[in-house]
Amino acid sequence: MVAIKLQKEENRKAFLDVYPRLADEILEELKKYNMPEDAYEWTKENLFYNVPGGKLNRGLSVVDTLRILKGDAITEDDVFKATVLGWLVEFLQAFFLVSDDIMDASITRRGQPCWYKKDGVGMVAINDAFILESCIYIFLKKYFKATDYYIDLVELFHEVTFQTELGQLCDLITAPEDHVDLSKFSVAKHKFIVIFKTAYYSFYLPVALAMMMNGVKTQEAYDQARNILIPLGEYFQVQDDYLDCYGDPAFIGKIGTDIQDNKCSWLVNQALAIATPEQRQVLDDNYGKKDAEAEAKIKALYIDLGIEGIYKAYEEKSFQDLTALIAQVDESTGVKKAVFTEFMDKIYKRTK
Amino acid sequence: MVAIKLQKEENRKAFLDVYPRLADEILEELKKYNMPEDAYEWTKENLFYNVPGGKLNRGLSVVDTLRILKGDAITEDDVFKATVLGWLVEFLQAFFLVSDDIMDASITRRGQPCWYKKDGVGMVAINDAFILESCIYIFLKKYFKATDYYIDLVELFHEVTFQTELGQLCDLITAPEDHVDLSKFSVAKHKFIVIFKTAYYSFYLPVALAMMMNGVKTQEAYDQARNILIPLGEYFQVQDDYLDCYGDPAFIGKIGTDIQDNKCSWLVNQALAIATPEQRQVLDDNYGKKDAEAEAKIKALYIDLGIEGIYKAYEEKSFQDLTALIAQVDESTGVKKAVFTEFMDKIYKRTK
Repeated sequence: MVAIKLQKEENRKAFLDVYPRLADEILEELKKYNMPEDAYEWTKENLFYNVPGGKLNRGLSVVDTLRILKGDAITEDDVFKATVLGWLVEFLQAFFLVSDDIMDASITRRGQPCWYKKDGVGMVAINDAFILESCIYIFLKKYFKATDYYIDLVELFHEVTFQTELGQLCDLITAPEDHVDLSKFSVAKHKFIVIFKTAYYSFYLPVALAMMMNGVKTQEAYDQARNILIPLGEYFQVQDDYLDCYGDPAFIGKIGTDIQDNKCSWLVNQALAIATPEQRQVLDDNYGKKDAEAEAKIKALYIDLGIEGIYKAYEEKSFQDLTALIAQVDESTGVKKAVFTEFMDKIYKRTK
Repeated sequence: MVAIKLQKEENRKAFLDVYPRLADEILEELKKYNMPEDAYEWTKENLFYNVPGGKLNRGLSVVDTLRILKGDAITEDDVFKATVLGWLVEFLQAFFLVSDDIMDASITRRGQPCWYKKDGVGMVAINDAFILESCIYIFLKKYFKATDYYIDLVELFHEVTFQTELGQLCDLITAPEDHVDLSKFSVAKHKFIVIFKTAYYSFYLPVALAMMMNGVKTQEAYDQARNILIPLGEYFQVQDDYLDCYGDPAFIGKIGTDIQDNKCSWLVNQALAIATPEQRQVLDDNYGKKDAEAEAKIKALYIDLGIEGIYKAYEEKSFQDLTALIAQVDESTGVKKAVFTEFMDKIYKRTK
């Protein structure tokens, strides 16, 4: 157990160590273009402020997945290339987070001010987010143009980017922070938002990238992976919604604000689905208010409605369903059950 | 002459007629994803509000260029595909304009409120801009995946997008509307901004797309095209800066505001390059002020400095240089001089 933890720490360090080299390669591009000094320095700060510094789960899971797929046959070059792809998932995430923070009017991110909130940055952050997205394709061309799966990587990043944007749009217009209208919420909309905004890029993308690197070509293999990873990502987000309300702040590292922030959370959608007209009135009157008393009323209503029990039942069922799906995986198509069980272990452990 | 004008009008109409079909194809994608109704309707409005409605010069020049390159051998399918590529340049432009308007705090665009200024849109416009960009790659995959130049198209769009973003960054940090600091300006920076922010996507991109469609593969041909189109695009933007100050508002369709808006215009950079310390003080004291009197002082200084004459000399020299460059074009590489002379005719006529 200690050995595994040490190995994880070492892998993480090796992953992090590659980043300065990647940032330098972008800066070299700017020099080739004779970019003026101040814009060069600006981009350097953009690259170092916004891309590293997260939990790196998404990026690391590209490398982890390739390790499982290749086993002992994995080479140093494989690990390096998977690390590059992992960082590209992190660039994609940085592109989303820098812009989401503007759209959500957020104040802090990863324990520091949001990029757009920094002195002198402001709306320039929008263009900085674009530049982070563009980096993805510069690296794909640089490191993968010679491979026979180059175009597959490019198309996958485009597809997943588009899906995430659709999820973000739906989230933004369903749950604007400044205008509460619970009639816009529904269990189906919540499902669309979490799958499109989170599951594709956080769960399917890293695994599909590793599969491409491993030479998997059949559509069936990708369909199998998607059919497991999307519900898994959906569960992950539902769990996130649950922890926001019921998690121990000391453990989850923040105090939940979903109720006050009018978030289209799984919990409120479950409540809306079973509320009596009177209970619905309580929801309408108190949800999305920046007010601890209103929040307490919502939490009390969740208790009356037995929302925590509904969650526990959902968790149990989704665990059973996913376990059954994984058992049916046909490894001859080029995926391995262990890829998915690794994710399951990480995620279903997280509540404990 | 009348016949040519009629033909132009017909080409433009044929180009415009393709747009609803393209928009519908994106909407079909959303249906496949089971996107919630309100997000579907939102995206429909995004597509029709922001993409058509411009002058369409960039999009049309893909089709015009292919007509010149193919001559009478052009087929209906060629025209359709060039039209699709032309619209993709317009999607790229829409992506830039929707986001630039937020970054520049603009109020109107193409005679209507900027998208982000519309009631209920706001910062959601950032994500809407992303969606417009994503459409480019959906169409490239749909219409060009089977061609041997598919990856070239994809890479070209990526490269030009990145270049434009670098130009936009440099422009934003050199000339923020709310903070005047002329020491940040220079002729070299102006050149970087106009080439990267405008010339690549407006001049090089449409021609390179048509060349790819025409089967041009040699790097030399693209280098020749770039070596002419980038200075041409640079001249075009310098002319734009000139017309902002010296053009007839009735003719250019707007009253110039570059001086009051602290724009990093060619004119002020020429003035800065030759101003005495006293004249520099006048520039520092009056440039970028929202004040007609200050603006008048700048205009008077431009007269003292003979800026208009410097412009006329620059125009003459750039015309001569470009004419000489075009004369040297080696048509055996797959480009034609007529592609460039057509652009020259359009642009150098515009002042008259």
